[in-house]
Amino acid sequence: MNTTSTTFLVLDLAGTFAFALNGAWTAMRVARLDIVGVVTLGMLTALGGGFIRDTILDALPPATFADWRYLVVAAAGALVAFVSGRVADRLATPILVLDAAGLSLFAVSGALKGVGFEVGVVQAVILGVITAVGGGTLRDVLIRQIPTVLTSGLYAIPALIGALVVVGGTQLGVAALPAAIVGAALCLVIRMLGVHFGVNAPGPIGRDRGDVDP
Amino acid sequence: MNTTSTTFLVLDLAGTFAFALNGAWTAMRVARLDIVGVVTLGMLTALGGGFIRDTILDALPPATFADWRYLVVAAAGALVAFVSGRVADRLATPILVLDAAGLSLFAVSGALKGVGFEVGVVQAVILGVITAVGGGTLRDVLIRQIPTVLTSGLYAIPALIGALVVVGGTQLGVAALPAAIVGAALCLVIRMLGVHFGVNAPGPIGRDRGDVDP
Amino acid sequence: MNTTSTTFLVLDLAGTFAFALNGAWTAMRVARLDIVGVVTLGMLTALGGGFIRDTILDALPPATFADWRYLVVAAAGALVAFVSGRVADRLATPILVLDAAGLSLFAVSGALKGVGFEVGVVQAVILGVITAVGGGTLRDVLIRQIPTVLTSGLYAIPALIGALVVVGGTQLGVAALPAAIVGAALCLVIRMLGVHFGVNAPGPIGRDRGDVDP
Repeated sequence: MNTTSTTFLVLDLAGTFAFALNGAWTAMRVARLDIVGVVTLGMLTALGGGFIRDTILDALPPATFADWRYLVVAAAGALVAFVSGRVADRLATPILVLDAAGLSLFAVSGALKGVGFEVGVVQAVILGVITAVGGGTLRDVLIRQIPTVLTSGLYAIPALIGALVVVGGTQLGVAALPAAIVGAALCLVIRMLGVHFGVNAPGPIGRDRGDVDP
Repeated sequence: MNTTSTTFLVLDLAGTFAFALNGAWTAMRVARLDIVGVVTLGMLTALGGGFIRDTILDALPPATFADWRYLVVAAAGALVAFVSGRVADRLATPILVLDAAGLSLFAVSGALKGVGFEVGVVQAVILGVITAVGGGTLRDVLIRQIPTVLTSGLYAIPALIGALVVVGGTQLGVAALPAAIVGAALCLVIRMLGVHFGVNAPGPIGRDRGDVDP
Repeated sequence: MNTTSTTFLVLDLAGTFAFALNGAWTAMRVARLDIVGVVTLGMLTALGGGFIRDTILDALPPATFADWRYLVVAAAGALVAFVSGRVADRLATPILVLDAAGLSLFAVSGALKGVGFEVGVVQAVILGVITAVGGGTLRDVLIRQIPTVLTSGLYAIPALIGALVVVGGTQLGVAALPAAIVGAALCLVIRMLGVHFGVNAPGPIGRDRGDVDP
């Protein structure tokens, strides 16, 4: 239980930093923003998924708000992105890796929190995915991009697999820490392979042969 | 009370299926999505209104998340839409009818839940409308459409009338089931008449004579 | 305590009216809406920030929903905007002033509510900013504008300063009413000066010399 708590906190803070940095960089590449916009979007990317997760779990105020460590780590990540400025234009690869890291860490930490609240197996897996994709989706809505989760080949599916491993593992009696490490590593690898090889999830029948929408 | 619960559940699950199917089809007509995007948007359309309703009511975790029946019915509706694939392009009319059905069922089930939580008469009516239009609005935001509720003639107004009938009826001592049936039927008829005859709600003064915005 | 409550309520209702009027006018300038759309967006602008604040505080149902005074004041503001119709096209300045007034009032009322819930100093300041910018951000998302808070020079910063004054003042033993008046006045003045002189918050390094994004 104590190990679970510590595992959860460390994963969650690491994911928070990765998403804050990545979220701020992504926003700076897409829209013309001042420091307030960059910090807002970085923090929203980092803290938004946990906010939705904790609302669903009735664990309000959300941990990502009540615990100052999340606020500090998220603000630090966003400020690092801001001061690195124009550099972001040349950082497509690090941005993708950081995003995959945040995705993996939040998928397993969100699923672990769901397990801790005993919400049911399916629900814990869904919570992991929501935690992983929620913050980036909120950011994309604010900067008027179609959210990555809807269009980008293998994005939600690695998160789903990572969350499944954690929930399945803990159900089978595996300790939280090894289950989380395996789940996060698997999510990260699948996500990066998907990016590298351009793998996509299947599209609707009759639409998967490259025909272009109007 | 027991009848109210059963009435509420059946209406709510029927509306969930209608909105999941409709939400997924609508999303497939507008954006190029893979299976994850279609299922996500179908489930969001179906479950989003109840999620907002239950957050407002402090009835967390939301019923649409905690109760596996909602998750299964919503996923089933979205998957039916996905496998029917390209067919959706020719389904403008069924999509409109299903949407009107979901609107009607959620307007009355949301209002009934508000009555059960004793939130006040006006608030129960507003809750019915929020439940009815909330999920579709979230979907439209994610696929970057102006939400139907803001622009489409008679969309919120039928939901408002359906919710009013349910709340007014139960206040006057009518049982939940007949009040819900009459409210939902009225909402459905008004919505479909509005679609058929292209009726619009009044626009701002000086703007209602067909002049075009820039 | 009683004075704090009354101060809070009066500030909050005044901000609600200002934001409902302003939110509805802003929406009418940008999108072609009927009465439902105008009232929805006016009420969302006025009530949305408080809704997010109260969700975070676990103070559900949100005051802006449970208390009929907020609903009536918000609906009244939106209806005034609707009947004034085309006039809104010529009201750029009053819209800006009303928006600044709502921003100031919500920044201090949101921060005061955070202080009352003892969420911590930093969190109370953040709550003030979220309350101030939340409703307008939701409106901008629905009408597909980039939210003002992300792009418009000094928008969040005056709210931050107003909230800081209130939280700092009450921490130092100043009564709620004078702290709120000073905080709101300072926020209003800074916002209007920022608008008048076109002051902007600093942009990312290497991007602040007027170069245009693609």
